[in-house]
Amino acid sequence: MGENDESEIIEHHDDEEMEKTRTPRYHAHSFLGSVASSEKDGYSSTQSSHRLLAYSDALISIIATVMILPVAHTKFQDNEELKQSIQALLTTKVAVYLMTFLIVTVAWAAHIRLFQVIKRIDDTLALLNLACMMLITVLPYTFSLMATFPSNTLGILLFCACVMVIGLIQATIVLYGFSRPFFLNDQIQMSGNQAYYKRHILEVIMRVPIMCLFASIFSFIYIQLSYIILAIVIFLPYISQCLKWIWNKAIGQVEDRPDSVPFYTYHPSEPLSKERVEAFSDGVYAIVATLLILDICKDNVPDPSVVKEEFNDKLLAALQEYGPEYLAYFGSFVTIGLLWFVHHSLFLHVTKATRLMGLFNTFSLAFVGGLPLAYHLTHEFPRGSLNELEAVQISCVIIFFAGLFQLAIWVTALFTQHETLHPYVRYGGREHAFMLAKLSLYPCVALGSFAFTCILSRFSTSIFHMMEIGVPFAFILLRLLVRVVLAVIRWLFCPVRNDFDSVPVEEEDSQLPINDIVT
Amino acid sequence: MGENDESEIIEHHDDEEMEKTRTPRYHAHSFLGSVASSEKDGYSSTQSSHRLLAYSDALISIIATVMILPVAHTKFQDNEELKQSIQALLTTKVAVYLMTFLIVTVAWAAHIRLFQVIKRIDDTLALLNLACMMLITVLPYTFSLMATFPSNTLGILLFCACVMVIGLIQATIVLYGFSRPFFLNDQIQMSGNQAYYKRHILEVIMRVPIMCLFASIFSFIYIQLSYIILAIVIFLPYISQCLKWIWNKAIGQVEDRPDSVPFYTYHPSEPLSKERVEAFSDGVYAIVATLLILDICKDNVPDPSVVKEEFNDKLLAALQEYGPEYLAYFGSFVTIGLLWFVHHSLFLHVTKATRLMGLFNTFSLAFVGGLPLAYHLTHEFPRGSLNELEAVQISCVIIFFAGLFQLAIWVTALFTQHETLHPYVRYGGREHAFMLAKLSLYPCVALGSFAFTCILSRFSTSIFHMMEIGVPFAFILLRLLVRVVLAVIRWLFCPVRNDFDSVPVEEEDSQLPINDIVT
Repeated sequence: MGENDESEIIEHHDDEEMEKTRTPRYHAHSFLGSVASSEKDGYSSTQSSHRLLAYSDALISIIATVMILPVAHTKFQDNEELKQSIQALLTTKVAVYLMTFLIVTVAWAAHIRLFQVIKRIDDTLALLNLACMMLITVLPYTFSLMATFPSNTLGILLFCACVMVIGLIQATIVLYGFSRPFFLNDQIQMSGNQAYYKRHILEVIMRVPIMCLFASIFSFIYIQLSYIILAIVIFLPYISQCLKWIWNKAIGQVEDRPDSVPFYTYHPSEPLSKERVEAFSDGVYAIVATLLILDICKDNVPDPSVVKEEFNDKLLAALQEYGPEYLAYFGSFVTIGLLWFVHHSLFLHVTKATRLMGLFNTFSLAFVGGLPLAYHLTHEFPRGSLNELEAVQISCVIIFFAGLFQLAIWVTALFTQHETLHPYVRYGGREHAFMLAKLSLYPCVALGSFAFTCILSRFSTSIFHMMEIGVPFAFILLRLLVRVVLAVIRWLFCPVRNDFDSVPVEEEDSQLPINDIVT
Repeated sequence: MGENDESEIIEHHDDEEMEKTRTPRYHAHSFLGSVASSEKDGYSSTQSSHRLLAYSDALISIIATVMILPVAHTKFQDNEELKQSIQALLTTKVAVYLMTFLIVTVAWAAHIRLFQVIKRIDDTLALLNLACMMLITVLPYTFSLMATFPSNTLGILLFCACVMVIGLIQATIVLYGFSRPFFLNDQIQMSGNQAYYKRHILEVIMRVPIMCLFASIFSFIYIQLSYIILAIVIFLPYISQCLKWIWNKAIGQVEDRPDSVPFYTYHPSEPLSKERVEAFSDGVYAIVATLLILDICKDNVPDPSVVKEEFNDKLLAALQEYGPEYLAYFGSFVTIGLLWFVHHSLFLHVTKATRLMGLFNTFSLAFVGGLPLAYHLTHEFPRGSLNELEAVQISCVIIFFAGLFQLAIWVTALFTQHETLHPYVRYGGREHAFMLAKLSLYPCVALGSFAFTCILSRFSTSIFHMMEIGVPFAFILLRLLVRVVLAVIRWLFCPVRNDFDSVPVEEEDSQLPINDIVT
């Protein structure tokens, strides 16, 4: 029951991390050492953080999408024009949803960063993390209080208090981790100047709570200033990185400091744990795909007495009332399922995720979150009304952007393709054309449907339904279609060339509307 | 761009599976071979199924818990006695929730079994699986229709249609998988009689849709018979295994047939993918932990005009109205978070999950799903009323069973501890006592609270709140407490023994109410 067993269980749970380091021998050794030291200190319960992070990702993804519910459950009057409703929605609820999504994903990014430093956990860290999670789940509520009562100090105080406590818990986790170095990742564990890392990380973490402290103090004096400070807190990393990038482009590349800290840099190419991006995206897709069925299960089981009185005991007639809801569910599940499928295909070939890719992924997910609402709207208005047309068009726009940002992830990855992409989907790779077709299918279809509904506005719903039914088949036949198109292009442009891997790919680009982004 | 790259990406995605086989060289070779054959057939898009399964688990876990929403949103009249409401609830909604949970977990178990055979996927299988997922998400709705209109043929027809289509899709997946053997798991891939495996698996899969076909035919003739058939479909594996087990015990062990199929056996010790049990449990814990905050975000942001008129523009006063909701959220999040923590600690030391452990896990999760409802009830009734007392007691009972079934998982694992548990938590292992304390903390506390509320019924809510606040601290100090208790026991019973690892554990048992199960 000695060291041998300990190393066995930890090796078992640490396989995940070994995949990344690809130096299992070295890793196991460094870890055996750390276990030995943990034995000395009496801490024998060191664990891999894998499942803790999976659970955190699941929680955060649900919380990120929760503010779509108040939007989705807004009641529309049939006689009211959608324009007005939409304007009322846009000004408050949609804005709150998007801001909440952004804030929660910022908290999630901070959580990723923290657990890229802290690689192993024990019970205390697990409980601290659960406390942190609870506060993150309260963020959307406090934010929406703040947004509903912008001139009230209490809203901003509650929000700032939440953020400050989250920051303090994260600082505690860092301090606890550095006091027991075997929790840290190998790079820091091996390095000589742990104290420097610790100071740098604490500085970055404490920046946000300190800014929030100022914001809450200023809320008593001049509340507008508080909001400016909060906006700075959220957007500062992006703004400063943008400025730095423009500056670098303008005066030429500044040399990277070789001794700079590889963690907490906020650089667009800072690595982001690919597993966690996938887990978070899976969570968002899963909760969004099931949002409509939650409502259907809750509200659309008819009351037996109503069926008896109004429908002459005919269940089928009663259920036909709900036809549009079923159709909306079918449409949104299929669309979200296929967008997940595209995301899955893309990340299968991504070897390293960066912060910028994570940002585009967040934007894509934010649009995905709006889909059930859009589909729900599509069927809430009478046939052929202006409202219905606009609901269909909004759905098209949302699908378009959700797909476009997925494409943007790939394009971003292509810029640093030797680090971030598998050879198959790089320029000239064997699957390049197929991946491009997969990623651009939804934006193209959405754009096409939008154009059609503008021209044939009377048939907007029919067009939309045909799209819903057609797209899954398009995905099944996509590989065939791409081959046919490539063969045709090859036959047209280069009938004698044998090197059919790299050239047709570039030809393929030219027939797609987004080729100026890609090339 | 040849075979080398292909094997690289697949190795990257296949690490998960390698962990299990622990023969990476062999595995990589077998896979290289399969990739080569896939090249020949023109199927170059073989992928690991890891993320597809994670997404499926997320979807199924949300769907399993969805029927708690109609229960949670039942409105209670304040003057009405809870007893009557509960009886109304128990007869329909709670029963529907529990049955749905069971049915969805049966579908999930079938899904696990299927993807223990099909180890690698391509785009077609991913899309087929998404279609299967969509039908699984509709199961709770069709079941609740059937339960609401038990004498109507349509309900049972819809439910059976769903099940039949799921079965057909699964059969298609199996046929597709066997037609391209590189999708199959290594054991079947290496074996000579694939045709035999295929026939056996298809037979097991098609059993359910065929029974459902009979059920739907009989629904036109004699509807009670249909329900009996459906009940047999769900419970048959359990009943037949129970009978077989009793039979074996009665007449002595029957020899295992050496040539029997290791998949689709329905034997209690049939292995269940540990990763998927964890992923599914994480999903359930995450959605259940956030159920109350979903409601809070949707309903508990006060209207600015109401605050202005009724509360004199004092937001704090308006929010105080919602105090009980906040407390309910806090209580349910903490309880579910800590139950997750216990589950996480347990599965960290589980090396192989079996079907029986999965069954107990399902029972535990079903009770966890009821927790938010129970906490919500706790604060919905006036202070000191009989209703409140009963709500508190129901919460205690739910926590007790959720914790007890977690303990049952461990006890089940202890029976075959050399296969299923890490040495640490086996009898006499170093963490045995600590794990027992962790697992029995919640059942003990819940039992204690229940007893106290019976005696001091006037203070039931205070007792409950003290439990909520006290338990997290108990978990933080648990390791210390266990050491103190062990030291005291050691000092009392065996002051001169040095072998302090195995003996005190059994002593520890004696102070816990469940020791007759454990020993």
